[in-house]
Amino acid sequence: MTRRLRMGMIGGGPGSFIGPIHRIAAEMDREIELVAGAFSSDPVRSAAAGQTYRIDPARAYASVDAMLAGEAARDEGIDFVAVVSPNHHHLPAARAALAAGIPVLSDKPMTATLAEAQELAGLVAAAGLPYGLTYTYSGYPLVREARARIAAGAIGTVRKVVVEYPQGWLAGEAAGKQAEWRVDPARAGLGGCIGDIGVHAFQLAEFVTGLAVTELLADLGAVVPGRQLDDDCTVLLRFANGARGVLLASQIEVGERNGLRFRIYGDKGGMAWAQERPNTLTVNTADGRSEIVHAGGSQLGPDAAARSRTPTGHPEGYLEAFANLYRDFAAQLRGEAAPLLPGIADGLRSMAFIATAVSASRDRAGWVALDI
Amino acid sequence: MTRRLRMGMIGGGPGSFIGPIHRIAAEMDREIELVAGAFSSDPVRSAAAGQTYRIDPARAYASVDAMLAGEAARDEGIDFVAVVSPNHHHLPAARAALAAGIPVLSDKPMTATLAEAQELAGLVAAAGLPYGLTYTYSGYPLVREARARIAAGAIGTVRKVVVEYPQGWLAGEAAGKQAEWRVDPARAGLGGCIGDIGVHAFQLAEFVTGLAVTELLADLGAVVPGRQLDDDCTVLLRFANGARGVLLASQIEVGERNGLRFRIYGDKGGMAWAQERPNTLTVNTADGRSEIVHAGGSQLGPDAAARSRTPTGHPEGYLEAFANLYRDFAAQLRGEAAPLLPGIADGLRSMAFIATAVSASRDRAGWVALDI
Amino acid sequence: MTRRLRMGMIGGGPGSFIGPIHRIAAEMDREIELVAGAFSSDPVRSAAAGQTYRIDPARAYASVDAMLAGEAARDEGIDFVAVVSPNHHHLPAARAALAAGIPVLSDKPMTATLAEAQELAGLVAAAGLPYGLTYTYSGYPLVREARARIAAGAIGTVRKVVVEYPQGWLAGEAAGKQAEWRVDPARAGLGGCIGDIGVHAFQLAEFVTGLAVTELLADLGAVVPGRQLDDDCTVLLRFANGARGVLLASQIEVGERNGLRFRIYGDKGGMAWAQERPNTLTVNTADGRSEIVHAGGSQLGPDAAARSRTPTGHPEGYLEAFANLYRDFAAQLRGEAAPLLPGIADGLRSMAFIATAVSASRDRAGWVALDI
Amino acid sequence: MTRRLRMGMIGGGPGSFIGPIHRIAAEMDREIELVAGAFSSDPVRSAAAGQTYRIDPARAYASVDAMLAGEAARDEGIDFVAVVSPNHHHLPAARAALAAGIPVLSDKPMTATLAEAQELAGLVAAAGLPYGLTYTYSGYPLVREARARIAAGAIGTVRKVVVEYPQGWLAGEAAGKQAEWRVDPARAGLGGCIGDIGVHAFQLAEFVTGLAVTELLADLGAVVPGRQLDDDCTVLLRFANGARGVLLASQIEVGERNGLRFRIYGDKGGMAWAQERPNTLTVNTADGRSEIVHAGGSQLGPDAAARSRTPTGHPEGYLEAFANLYRDFAAQLRGEAAPLLPGIADGLRSMAFIATAVSASRDRAGWVALDI
Repeated sequence: MTRRLRMGMIGGGPGSFIGPIHRIAAEMDREIELVAGAFSSDPVRSAAAGQTYRIDPARAYASVDAMLAGEAARDEGIDFVAVVSPNHHHLPAARAALAAGIPVLSDKPMTATLAEAQELAGLVAAAGLPYGLTYTYSGYPLVREARARIAAGAIGTVRKVVVEYPQGWLAGEAAGKQAEWRVDPARAGLGGCIGDIGVHAFQLAEFVTGLAVTELLADLGAVVPGRQLDDDCTVLLRFANGARGVLLASQIEVGERNGLRFRIYGDKGGMAWAQERPNTLTVNTADGRSEIVHAGGSQLGPDAAARSRTPTGHPEGYLEAFANLYRDFAAQLRGEAAPLLPGIADGLRSMAFIATAVSASRDRAGWVALDI
Repeated sequence: MTRRLRMGMIGGGPGSFIGPIHRIAAEMDREIELVAGAFSSDPVRSAAAGQTYRIDPARAYASVDAMLAGEAARDEGIDFVAVVSPNHHHLPAARAALAAGIPVLSDKPMTATLAEAQELAGLVAAAGLPYGLTYTYSGYPLVREARARIAAGAIGTVRKVVVEYPQGWLAGEAAGKQAEWRVDPARAGLGGCIGDIGVHAFQLAEFVTGLAVTELLADLGAVVPGRQLDDDCTVLLRFANGARGVLLASQIEVGERNGLRFRIYGDKGGMAWAQERPNTLTVNTADGRSEIVHAGGSQLGPDAAARSRTPTGHPEGYLEAFANLYRDFAAQLRGEAAPLLPGIADGLRSMAFIATAVSASRDRAGWVALDI
Repeated sequence: MTRRLRMGMIGGGPGSFIGPIHRIAAEMDREIELVAGAFSSDPVRSAAAGQTYRIDPARAYASVDAMLAGEAARDEGIDFVAVVSPNHHHLPAARAALAAGIPVLSDKPMTATLAEAQELAGLVAAAGLPYGLTYTYSGYPLVREARARIAAGAIGTVRKVVVEYPQGWLAGEAAGKQAEWRVDPARAGLGGCIGDIGVHAFQLAEFVTGLAVTELLADLGAVVPGRQLDDDCTVLLRFANGARGVLLASQIEVGERNGLRFRIYGDKGGMAWAQERPNTLTVNTADGRSEIVHAGGSQLGPDAAARSRTPTGHPEGYLEAFANLYRDFAAQLRGEAAPLLPGIADGLRSMAFIATAVSASRDRAGWVALDI
Repeated sequence: MTRRLRMGMIGGGPGSFIGPIHRIAAEMDREIELVAGAFSSDPVRSAAAGQTYRIDPARAYASVDAMLAGEAARDEGIDFVAVVSPNHHHLPAARAALAAGIPVLSDKPMTATLAEAQELAGLVAAAGLPYGLTYTYSGYPLVREARARIAAGAIGTVRKVVVEYPQGWLAGEAAGKQAEWRVDPARAGLGGCIGDIGVHAFQLAEFVTGLAVTELLADLGAVVPGRQLDDDCTVLLRFANGARGVLLASQIEVGERNGLRFRIYGDKGGMAWAQERPNTLTVNTADGRSEIVHAGGSQLGPDAAARSRTPTGHPEGYLEAFANLYRDFAAQLRGEAAPLLPGIADGLRSMAFIATAVSASRDRAGWVALDI
């Protein structure tokens, strides 16, 4: 029997939104089991989290180092860490794990700054260990179907990309744990909306098209009175093949929930997908045909088909998409190919995107190169 | 720490569709852990399943009795069984578990026949143990929201119910393990479509309205040439308060996937929900207002709100709905109230529905009472 | 120049809903011009209507006979009449026109009773004049596209038909001119909902499939307390080729507007269309493909294409569908073929449907033949 | 009786798309009648058009001047002209009509250039005659409902506007009369997509919000190889109150038909509407409620309610929206208020928008003021 892989979580303590999500995603396919965690630097809180996750109390640690040491001393210690702590902890957490020879799966963003991301890229290369980034939306089966079809020429040469990520939950005063850090430059970094969700749209656009963004023009705004970080973003894009693009992200669009979506047009067709209705992909062709491709259905290619757990008509969603990334990471740990899992390259490009967009907008710089 | 509950699975061997679904659902909230199974009566196949599920090889048994005995002998034996074997095994499996003092969560239908269901109802009553039935669709948060709102009078007195369950996958020759048993009277029982999916629609109609069906008129047909069991069903309904209803279920509607849905109308409003777009509920009122209620959103009542794992805009689906039933069952095992989990009453009524519909249609009996 | 055809309207006086609709539809393509009317038997009201329609005051008559005589005396008298008066006037109006050698386009229903319809059928046959019935929904381009594709075998042999017509506007006390006559047996005839809208669903089902209903089982109810006529109808259908069908019509489903729709399934595919979103037709095939056919688009056959006035993406609706029937009738008057315009056969079958459904439901007769 | 107003058409000869549309729209409410036309400068073609429209052959003229003279000589000459000729004819046509004391309703754009528009504005002011511009989409009832609700504060202070107009029909080689002139700088003017459809989006954004655009940043591209005019446009906007905006228009997005739509967000709510589904308006509020407002329904304000011809659930579309503008213009001619009909101010602002966007994009000028 191939045993379950053992995961240690870094972060994800009481009140965390994303920690429990990672736990569900990691364990969904029974490839992986949460066995340990450095959930908080406060021992009491870390123990409380361990209790919530129902793990062995002895394996709820109060620091990353303690976890790495404690697990190394066990016969059945952790196989990898999942980093879900605040952004500025991503680098130290990953650094410590890699130094201990432990692979890393990290929540996005890769790090707090581009410089940190570059440092981490070097560490990963030197360590020669698996490293993955949970750009969740690239785990949706129909996102992968879109990618595969575009790569196979279904819409011809990509000419135009529209990617949007509307939300409305920060349209008022930011209240609550999840909101407060996102509007605080000390905790969120340079970017607000652009770093929180704009970067998801950016990564998705590159993921689905297989094309790199080479230039951008950014217009970031802070709409809510008194807000210091951007909460509404428009970024014009140019891709490596000359394709034109637009990226819209906002957290002040009242009534929008989590509306990540893309429309991609080539010279022979077009495609559209939206995260809130993730089980259909629209495909149009230049002869006037409009097709709806259904998740789990018979029209899917092998990658998308393999990432459904239920027959067509049984909706899968965000958690299952997230679990597909863990499945990919588990495959990598077992020495199998899982090339679609976002990793260092996505991380570096994403951090460069945030840094470039923030500086270009602040300086009203017009079109600037996105170098990485 | 409240430990995870330990589950033994009965059925769910190689090639099973529903076994892995139960496993994911059971473990999603880390309330429960799959630790043992009598996955098949063939020892080799049971062992293979155990390996797929990554459980301890010693706990993959070749019979229910072996599992019950083996687990009873362990300090950390199973806390309950999940019955996912073919329909005619449901009664013996549940009987054995109950005799061993083990609670039962069973896939629908309760048993193969109404007589068996009545026997099982007696056994459960005598044992005084928790018993649940996974009528999955009653686990959707917005189904519960609809139920709660209707109970609170949001649409006034219910007058009309339309519940539909269209599928198309049995429109041709039934091929493959999942299809073949469903069209074979020896394995599926008296009912084909009516027992496989019509009964889901029936249970959902009663669950959401809180009203019992008291009379029905059934017209079941076998559309595919040569088919012995019904594959297309129309059933007219009357509810206890006089409300009129229609239940449509079919497995020969080409292009339909898993289209369970309901529309319920009262004298003050109406509601509509569809399983393939489960994250919205439409609510109309007699003054002309049309509202869309979103899963995870701020307009939800407590029960629906508590059954979302992610914020609004992050689609949850079939597996999460299923997991809500396991969460309810775990609560019952821990001595907490979870009154919405379907159980004996739903099971008996559902079996009576199937039996009554089949006989009434065969006899062209017109309106008949649904007694139970 | 081929001149515009001259129309005289019978009925459509002050407060009429359908009169102005007919006027718009008739004139939309400039094939026809409203020039005269017997809008009301009250001379003052007929004159007022004429003023509203902005016709020559001398041509607003107070009786059908006066109009027929007056127009016959003119060089440029009317070419046909449009009958839009209450149902029990349909026969005398048509009889008078035919006797005067004037073709008739009539609003549905054909007459107030089946016996009257049979009389009218004889009169039309004897007169040898064009007669059309405005079953509006058969004028939608995508309804015709569905009909043409089904006739061409796109979904194989039709096996199942679901046709629905939900409305909610009579869920409360019937108030206002439009509501009051519909719930009054003296004015509406034997059928309430079944005659007002159920018959539209019936005609549409036969129109699109090209199949005749041969048997039915009707369950008509009067849901609103005190109502004498049916306001909620379920009718099971069998078609000439053995296909199964269900017809649902209701006027008490709060929140529904004018939701006429159909889903038709064959052994090779399925189709769905809904009047409230009339510019798309969904076509599914047994290999799992789902196609959206767009009004005005390049995938349409000749009949549907010829019945769009604007390019794809410019929504056309109810009035344009209605105008397509007038276009057909004008073609007939000019001696051209327009075989899809509903006429005597549709009228007779529809009246038989109403009569049969009402009596079968009243008598709880079970399955009965639909003879005509 | 208030007689029908008499319209003379300028342009709209054989092969014209928009001429017949104007004719249908003008006559839909029987306020107006097409009686004359200078359909083409070729007498044969003008006569042919007159025959198609079924007007008196004597009133199909070969020049605007001939029509104005001929009609002036009649007792029942035209009351106004509808200008539907190519863009560069708009000014001379309007100038001639105004000089003859004849009011003008013109298709957009107002003129071929901003300078011409300014000249025309002066002529209209001097003449003191009604002048309207058919920015069609502002005639939709739910667009007016959105405007009225926003003006009444339903979404609070407008903060963000996203307006889009995707089309795909010029993604390939431009073939056919309608396509060819649009990609030819000699006939279309400076702007391609921006002038053809981008300007509709611009006008709609200002119309619905009641706010003027004060600054813009334009990025216009010519995507199809060899194309001289823009076919894909992104324009960032700032409104007078500081609100941020984005305007996307494209004619190379394969599979898009006529997807004009807007989403407008304030500090208290948001609204969304799309031309291809024009009979619903989505309204969200900051407390999490989502409402669907239906055309023709009871939730509408007076202006929107007055612009529906059928009850809710009977789809109205593009032609009915267009007809609402003619109804407004007829009201103006009769001396009644119809303040929502677009006119000189919309025309000037639109022409300035096109000119500014084209020059700013060509010069990569960044943010520029939109002065008018």
